[in-house]
Amino acid sequence: MEIIRSNFKDNLNKVYEAIEEADFLAIDGEFSGISDGPSVSTLTNGFDTPEERYQKLKKHSMDFLLFQFGLCSFKSDHTEAKYIMKSFNFYIFPKPFNRSSPDVKFVCQSSSIDFLANQGFDFNKVFRNGIPYLNQEEERQLREQYDEKRSQANGAGTLSYISPNATKCPVTIPEDQKKFIERVVEQIEDLLQNEENKSLQLEPCTGFQRKLIYQTLSWKYPKGIHVETLETEKKERYIVISKVDEEERKRREQQKQAKEQEELSDAVGFSRVIHAIANSGKLVVGHNMLLDVMHTIHQFYCPLPEDLSEFKELAACVFPRLLDTKLMASTQPFKEIINNTSLAELEKRLKKIPFNPPEVESAEGFPSYDTASEQLHEAGYDAYITGLCFISMANYLGSFLSPPKNHVSARSKLIEPFFNKLFLMRVMDIPYLNLEGPDLQPKRDHVLHVTFPREWKTSDLYQLFSAFGGVSGVHGGAAAVDSPPGGRPGNILVSWIDDTSAFVSLSQPEQVQIAVNTSRYAESYRIQTYAEYVEKKHEEKQAKRKWTEDSWKEMERKRLKTQYTPYIPQSRYYCVNSFTATSTMGKRSMSPIQEETGSDDMEEREIQDTELDETDCYAESVPEGRKRAKKFKKVKEQDPTGSITSGSTELFDVPDTW
Amino acid sequence: MEIIRSNFKDNLNKVYEAIEEADFLAIDGEFSGISDGPSVSTLTNGFDTPEERYQKLKKHSMDFLLFQFGLCSFKSDHTEAKYIMKSFNFYIFPKPFNRSSPDVKFVCQSSSIDFLANQGFDFNKVFRNGIPYLNQEEERQLREQYDEKRSQANGAGTLSYISPNATKCPVTIPEDQKKFIERVVEQIEDLLQNEENKSLQLEPCTGFQRKLIYQTLSWKYPKGIHVETLETEKKERYIVISKVDEEERKRREQQKQAKEQEELSDAVGFSRVIHAIANSGKLVVGHNMLLDVMHTIHQFYCPLPEDLSEFKELAACVFPRLLDTKLMASTQPFKEIINNTSLAELEKRLKKIPFNPPEVESAEGFPSYDTASEQLHEAGYDAYITGLCFISMANYLGSFLSPPKNHVSARSKLIEPFFNKLFLMRVMDIPYLNLEGPDLQPKRDHVLHVTFPREWKTSDLYQLFSAFGGVSGVHGGAAAVDSPPGGRPGNILVSWIDDTSAFVSLSQPEQVQIAVNTSRYAESYRIQTYAEYVEKKHEEKQAKRKWTEDSWKEMERKRLKTQYTPYIPQSRYYCVNSFTATSTMGKRSMSPIQEETGSDDMEEREIQDTELDETDCYAESVPEGRKRAKKFKKVKEQDPTGSITSGSTELFDVPDTW
Repeated sequence: MEIIRSNFKDNLNKVYEAIEEADFLAIDGEFSGISDGPSVSTLTNGFDTPEERYQKLKKHSMDFLLFQFGLCSFKSDHTEAKYIMKSFNFYIFPKPFNRSSPDVKFVCQSSSIDFLANQGFDFNKVFRNGIPYLNQEEERQLREQYDEKRSQANGAGTLSYISPNATKCPVTIPEDQKKFIERVVEQIEDLLQNEENKSLQLEPCTGFQRKLIYQTLSWKYPKGIHVETLETEKKERYIVISKVDEEERKRREQQKQAKEQEELSDAVGFSRVIHAIANSGKLVVGHNMLLDVMHTIHQFYCPLPEDLSEFKELAACVFPRLLDTKLMASTQPFKEIINNTSLAELEKRLKKIPFNPPEVESAEGFPSYDTASEQLHEAGYDAYITGLCFISMANYLGSFLSPPKNHVSARSKLIEPFFNKLFLMRVMDIPYLNLEGPDLQPKRDHVLHVTFPREWKTSDLYQLFSAFGGVSGVHGGAAAVDSPPGGRPGNILVSWIDDTSAFVSLSQPEQVQIAVNTSRYAESYRIQTYAEYVEKKHEEKQAKRKWTEDSWKEMERKRLKTQYTPYIPQSRYYCVNSFTATSTMGKRSMSPIQEETGSDDMEEREIQDTELDETDCYAESVPEGRKRAKKFKKVKEQDPTGSITSGSTELFDVPDTW
Repeated sequence: MEIIRSNFKDNLNKVYEAIEEADFLAIDGEFSGISDGPSVSTLTNGFDTPEERYQKLKKHSMDFLLFQFGLCSFKSDHTEAKYIMKSFNFYIFPKPFNRSSPDVKFVCQSSSIDFLANQGFDFNKVFRNGIPYLNQEEERQLREQYDEKRSQANGAGTLSYISPNATKCPVTIPEDQKKFIERVVEQIEDLLQNEENKSLQLEPCTGFQRKLIYQTLSWKYPKGIHVETLETEKKERYIVISKVDEEERKRREQQKQAKEQEELSDAVGFSRVIHAIANSGKLVVGHNMLLDVMHTIHQFYCPLPEDLSEFKELAACVFPRLLDTKLMASTQPFKEIINNTSLAELEKRLKKIPFNPPEVESAEGFPSYDTASEQLHEAGYDAYITGLCFISMANYLGSFLSPPKNHVSARSKLIEPFFNKLFLMRVMDIPYLNLEGPDLQPKRDHVLHVTFPREWKTSDLYQLFSAFGGVSGVHGGAAAVDSPPGGRPGNILVSWIDDTSAFVSLSQPEQVQIAVNTSRYAESYRIQTYAEYVEKKHEEKQAKRKWTEDSWKEMERKRLKTQYTPYIPQSRYYCVNSFTATSTMGKRSMSPIQEETGSDDMEEREIQDTELDETDCYAESVPEGRKRAKKFKKVKEQDPTGSITSGSTELFDVPDTW
């Protein structure tokens, strides 16, 4: 179901209902871009720690706009062992609510736009008809604005006992406005005294004057009149005063307040859907969903926090239960029987043995998707496919029970090991980001950080390291990847950081020391251990922070000739399920961004990048993956019991070395 | 005429023709935004120098996308004393040409998008069907890519004398590819020997392998075969080798080159229109066109240069003759008879006495515009209206001749004083940016720079300065602007910079010293002269540059343990009318941007801003403008001769004080 601004309100209850009755929800987002500069390979380096990955995505991905949000609710129909599905495709745009609304700037990456254009994406649905939204802070400020207006207009509610003729007037009227206000008051008096007249329309005047009028009238005439502001065709604002009895006045006030409430809700817009999802506590399923989660929080709640640990807290509030189907498919017991975990391929695979295609039909009144026609990269469709994948994989787990079960629900303990772990692309020794606790911290004592001239290619690195004891020889097997001249020095892995640096992983920790020692006398390149690299980065960060602070302190001092005031750290997050929760003051700021395609766009880009670099780059190759599969297969065979323990360690067995 | 990607090529000749035959051209651009942060008032401060304005716009406006370009050609039909008009509305989008194309990131400002959406703008025409383009550097690089490919493929043209069996092969084939290449060569031999076979299709293989094949075949078989790469449906690339006689081979080579030339032209896309405009040397007319000029150069030529002086040189190459109708309308003899110089109002005014509406009709085959239906903010329409305004104003100048002339052409000396001066918004003592030479440099010895707490409003500043000898009293006249309590201290002008600083202009230079002296003992605010402010900014800039350099030097040294290499200044610009001209290496970089609406969007925003600030801000008001008009009227009366001298000083008489 396509939801845009004009049909959003009419369909909101349907959305709430779908969320409410769902067994689980699937989501997917489409963004205006992925990376504001670094290539996808740079952004997703194979040796990123979760903290580094979070920082990179936060820095380079968050200024794009999530402009299409797909939501699919799945409810199992127990009588028929099938699921009823309702899908929604929301188009989103930060249309400014009024003149004092934030004026959001967002970035577009041409290749992403082009990609979506080729899928037939309708950009007018976003830019002309997108559903607006406010984040928590913006909602709070708008509420405050309304409250302030109301208290200004009715401000003298408590002063209604003051005689209208009291000289001590609570409103300060500037000297040059006194005549003007006096004239208005005269007109009100005429209105009140003359029985025939029911209302009085004042001439358009300035905002300041209107404010004075409201203030004056509210203390002079706390009852008996209703004051409102209207607009001419030419957008000039003028005040109309109507005589009303007390009941009528109260009724009109309530009407006005109800109208304001509605305006507020309209401005909060699509965020209400996210609130509903969060409040429902339902399981939310996504595919390679780290970016979707980051964008959703950043755009509809508050700008992402400084640290990963804060982000985890926040994510736990917004999405109490998350499951990443790409991670599930890359983990035991799926990993060995599934080769390609990109969404489209995964869906195809999960329709065949040993999996069963899920039984799913659209709810009445909802359109169905034809997976044959493949509306990939439409968020609603991708969410749907993600849901199908989840169902198939969850049900498969039931086959390990005694006796086996066909249907494993979203509430089953069998899937709990997969909760709140988000797939981490390309980091082989840390397959997921753990939202529920600390992340894996592999030793990486066989990893080196190398810096070299920008002309170097992977073959140069291979040549360099073959000197340090790698096994020389042609890489065997039917690999499609070309080998450099001289053969590949055993099992080294190159993970490019940028033009002049890379991580290199050796197969033997002993080689590390040889490499570091030898490089001490090298002129064109430098090698340090991974540990040294981490340490140095930490030092640099501290130093840079200090210089920046110093420089700015100096400038501030000169400019303002005042004492430097210390930076006040922002407060911790409250759980964001409450509308009244405070959150850190967020600005929709423009930091340089880099784009990470969500879900499988990223993988498509990887493949493109690889093709491009084919002659130069010998990155993570299939054989590595195969090697690991072999290792796990062994583990599984050792444990031939038919039951799956609920301990997550077995499923997520990550080798100490690779 | 709507021009998008699919009909661009078919209509390009029409465009060229229209430019070629035109007497003058009118242009207008629509952008995805104006300011990436600062409000329009901050971005266009009343005391900016042209250099400062250029820097601000460069910093805050250039990351938006010019995505609609309006071009109207006007050719006068001498027999009937009317103009024939051809209008073009181009939709533009930086669609990546191939995988190695730059991947442009651009920013969108929600309020600008929303504004255009309300005008019925079709965003799909941009994002799905926009005409691509390359700037000069990108074009050069693409040309280089093609040249390199060609020389690689045909590389051994000079080596054709080497016997195919020579052991010294010019191509280095890696050990593990030798078998593969040998097999390919075998297949070629079969092809050549077997008379029946005309062509040979190889299996898809990697890019690296394809490169080796091309290199090998070009030296082994310099004649007799034609080699090309094709793509399967699945986008896999494979090589096809065809037997050809020399003539056939040459013909196919030429075909291939012609195809490449066409691909190159397609990629250069819309830039070709700008090249044609530049090369034509025709007068180009725009309305408040500084931003249009900056964007056009930035997007289609090269990123804007560091300094305003370099920009002037560049602009002179791209647009040898420019005329800004907003400036024209704000200058003598128009200024006194035209109150509102916003485009829509100007067009209406110029249809009435003492002006004459221009006689303009669309050329055959071109649609006409109905000014009554007002398609404002569509670039083609705005360009059209701009052209109409120019014609009316130019013709009016003819009324000062003896005998008077009805029609003043684009080549008349009468309009030369207006050439190459671009309107500078809100800077009262510097009305234009002079592209042909140095800018006006008013003394500004009655201007102060004030810093104060952020709670202060304009009324606070007024109170402060009334202490320094301003004439106290209520501001008289029927001004709509409210006066603060205590009245307005004579003729001071406040020009806000940001929340905590502003320029204040006093009517008497003597007051300046009093103010500066008095403020020395103040705690909450600081006052310095304009001259001191400028000096200080200059110092800070130098200092900051030094700190940044030092910090980075330090980090570089630590990281790379190498000597710091000095920054190499970029070369000067060559005239960009030549395709072979070199230009500075440009990156489509993402610096934080602020938006400035082009043409009158800016004014519309000003009005909105003013309304918003009505209660607080007493900015440049009508009376100031009236004061100046009175002054000029006097000047005119003193010179009652009917003729206009061609000296530009009279028309651009700018008062020393205001």
